[in-house]
Amino acid sequence: MMKAGPPTPYLVVDRDVLDRNLERMRSIAARHGVRLRPHMKTTKSVEIALAAHGGQAGSITVSTLREARHFADAGFRDILYAVTTTPAKVTEIAALGAATGAQITILAEDATVAAAVGAEAQSCGLRLPALIDIDCGYGRSGLRPDDPHLPVLGRLIQDHPCLSLAGVMTHAGQAYDCRDADAVRRVARQEVSATVAAATLLRDIGLPVPTVSIGSTPTALLADDLSGITEIRPGNYQFLDLTQAAISVCGPGDIALRVVTEVLSHHPGGHALVDAGALALSKDTGADGHYGIVARIGDAPAPPGLFIAKVAQEQGYLRGPHGLDLTWLLPVGTRVEVLPNHACMTAAAHDFYHIRSDSHAPDIWRRVNGWH
Amino acid sequence: MMKAGPPTPYLVVDRDVLDRNLERMRSIAARHGVRLRPHMKTTKSVEIALAAHGGQAGSITVSTLREARHFADAGFRDILYAVTTTPAKVTEIAALGAATGAQITILAEDATVAAAVGAEAQSCGLRLPALIDIDCGYGRSGLRPDDPHLPVLGRLIQDHPCLSLAGVMTHAGQAYDCRDADAVRRVARQEVSATVAAATLLRDIGLPVPTVSIGSTPTALLADDLSGITEIRPGNYQFLDLTQAAISVCGPGDIALRVVTEVLSHHPGGHALVDAGALALSKDTGADGHYGIVARIGDAPAPPGLFIAKVAQEQGYLRGPHGLDLTWLLPVGTRVEVLPNHACMTAAAHDFYHIRSDSHAPDIWRRVNGWH
Repeated sequence: MMKAGPPTPYLVVDRDVLDRNLERMRSIAARHGVRLRPHMKTTKSVEIALAAHGGQAGSITVSTLREARHFADAGFRDILYAVTTTPAKVTEIAALGAATGAQITILAEDATVAAAVGAEAQSCGLRLPALIDIDCGYGRSGLRPDDPHLPVLGRLIQDHPCLSLAGVMTHAGQAYDCRDADAVRRVARQEVSATVAAATLLRDIGLPVPTVSIGSTPTALLADDLSGITEIRPGNYQFLDLTQAAISVCGPGDIALRVVTEVLSHHPGGHALVDAGALALSKDTGADGHYGIVARIGDAPAPPGLFIAKVAQEQGYLRGPHGLDLTWLLPVGTRVEVLPNHACMTAAAHDFYHIRSDSHAPDIWRRVNGWH
Repeated sequence: MMKAGPPTPYLVVDRDVLDRNLERMRSIAARHGVRLRPHMKTTKSVEIALAAHGGQAGSITVSTLREARHFADAGFRDILYAVTTTPAKVTEIAALGAATGAQITILAEDATVAAAVGAEAQSCGLRLPALIDIDCGYGRSGLRPDDPHLPVLGRLIQDHPCLSLAGVMTHAGQAYDCRDADAVRRVARQEVSATVAAATLLRDIGLPVPTVSIGSTPTALLADDLSGITEIRPGNYQFLDLTQAAISVCGPGDIALRVVTEVLSHHPGGHALVDAGALALSKDTGADGHYGIVARIGDAPAPPGLFIAKVAQEQGYLRGPHGLDLTWLLPVGTRVEVLPNHACMTAAAHDFYHIRSDSHAPDIWRRVNGWH
C-alpha cells in the first residue's frame, strides 16, 4: 500500500526529457541563427535556466521582478522583464541592478509612460534599455506595426538620456488558439512579419533596432523561416504540457513535468480521490474539461483513459473510461503521476522540483514564486 | 500617476470587514450552541486563526500537513486534518505531534485503510483520534449514513489500540451549486440530517460519538436548525468572495480580501492591462466568466461595471461596460482593488496579507502555502 518517495503531492521533473527539450530549442535557435533568450516564467528555476544555455548564465526573460532578482542573485546578467514597466516599478529595478550588477531590459508601449519611466530612471541614476512591445495580432498589449505612435515612441526612447532603444518584441499568444501545426505556422509568419515590419519602420527613420525578438513555444518550435528575427523567447518548451500536445507541438512523451499524487479513497460514483487538487494541479482544464491525465501508476506506464475529472482545493477526482471501477487497479496508497494541462500554472503552487533521471543523480531544485 | 503603497500586485485585507465576518460566525456558533472549528484552508494565517477565536489558539481545521505544522508551531493544540489520512501520512503526523505537542485528529472513510493507518500509528507510538467522513449528498468522499460499512468502520476505529472514535463529520460542497438562500437552507438540512443519522446509528451500537461536525460557509451562515450538531467548520467566511455573494450568502461589502493591481497600459480593444493575472487573481471565474470585479480605484469606490475580462499569467484585461474607453478613468499607474471570485484560490499564490483598518495600525500578516 505504501511506496517510498517524498510526501505527496509533489512535482517530479524527468531530467532526461527536460534536457532533450532544452537541446531541441538550442538547435532550433542555432539553425535559424538567432539568440535564445528563454522565458523563465514556466520553470522559474536557476538550474533549468543554466541548463537551457548549456551551463552558462545566458540571456533570459522573466515575468516578475522577484524572478529577475532570483536569477540576478544567481549570476544572470542580461534579463528582459517582459511586462510593461510603469514608473512605480523603476525603483525596484534600480535596486536590483545596483545590488547584483544585472542589466534589466524593460518593455515600453506608450510614449507618455515611457517618458515618466525615463524620468524615474533619471532620478535613480539608472539607464534602461527598452524594447518596444509590438502587437502581432494577439491584441493583448503593444502597438500594431502601422500604429502612428510607434515612431514617436521609438524616437522618445532613443533620445531620452536614461533610456535606450534595444529593439522590438512581440508575443504571439494567438498560437494557443490553433488546433493544428499548420495553423501555428501561419501564426509564426504573422509574428515574424509584424515584428520585422516594426523594425524596418524604425530603422527607416534612423533608429537603431539591434534586437528583433519573438517568443512563444508553439511558433518557436514550428516556424519555418525567421528571416529578420534576432532572438526567440519561448518558455513553456522547457516542460511542455497537454496544451502544447493538443496543438501538435509535442507528444505526451515530451512533457517533462508531472504531479505525483497518492490515492486516498474510492467512491461509489466510480472515482478515486487523490491528494492533488486545484492547488497542486491548477484549475486549467484540457480540451475536454479534465484537469490532467494519468501517465504512470507507481513505476509503470498507466493504461490509457485515466484522468482527473474534477478538483477540490486539495483533492482530485480520478476517473477511468466508462466509470471503470478503479479499486483493484489503484489501491489506496498507490502513487500516480499526472501530466499537467498547463505547466506554467501547475508548477506555480509548488516550491520544489524533484529531479528524476536515468543519467544523473536524483536532486531537488527550487523554484521562485511571488512578485517582489 | 503614482501612488504610495507596496509594489503591486499584492493582497489587502480589510481588517474591519474581517473582524465583522469573524464575529458574525462566532455569534452563529454561540446561538446554535456548537463549537466553532474554523477551516484555515482559505486564509492560512495565524493572526486570523487567533482572531477567529477572539485571541485564543482554539480548535481549527486544516487542509494540508504544512498548515498543521505552521499552526501547531504557533501554539494551536487541537487540529483536525480534514483530508482522508493514508498510512503514508502517519509518520509526518507523528513527527508533527512529537515536535509541537499538538493533537491531530484525522479523517477515516474505509476500514481496511483505517486499520493500516492504525498499524502505522502503532509503529510510531502514536494514538490518533479519527472522525468518520460522511457523505451528505455531495458525492466527493465519505460513507453515506446508511452504508453498511459505517458501523464496521466505527467499531474498528474504536477497538483499535492506537485509534479512537472522535465522531462523524461531513462537508456539504453541494451548497456551492445553489443559486439562492432557500436552496442553501435545504442543503443545510441534508447536511444536518445525514450527519445526525450517522451519529445515531453509531451510538445505537454502543459507540461514542462526541463530535458531530458539519462545515461549509454557506450552510453555516444560513442554517436554521443545528439540532444534534456539536461543531461547525466553515473557512471561507473569514474573507468571503464573489462566489458567496452569488449564492446570496453575503454582499460585496462583506468581502475582506482584495487584489491590488496597477494599470499598465491601454489598448484599442478597449481594455486596460493590469499587473494581476492568472497567478495573482487565480483562474476561478465568476458566473458570467469574469476573473474579478473592480471595487476601488485608488482610495475611492469604483463605479459599477469594471471587471477583469481575461487573464494571462501576469496580466489582467480590465474592461468597462460596453467597451467604455478607460483611458481617462484609469490612467497608467492607477491602482485598483479587485474583489476575488474565490478567495481560497486567489490567496494561494500570495505569501502575505497587507492589513488595512480604520481602527488598527497597518500590518503585514504571513500566510503558509505548500504541502509539507
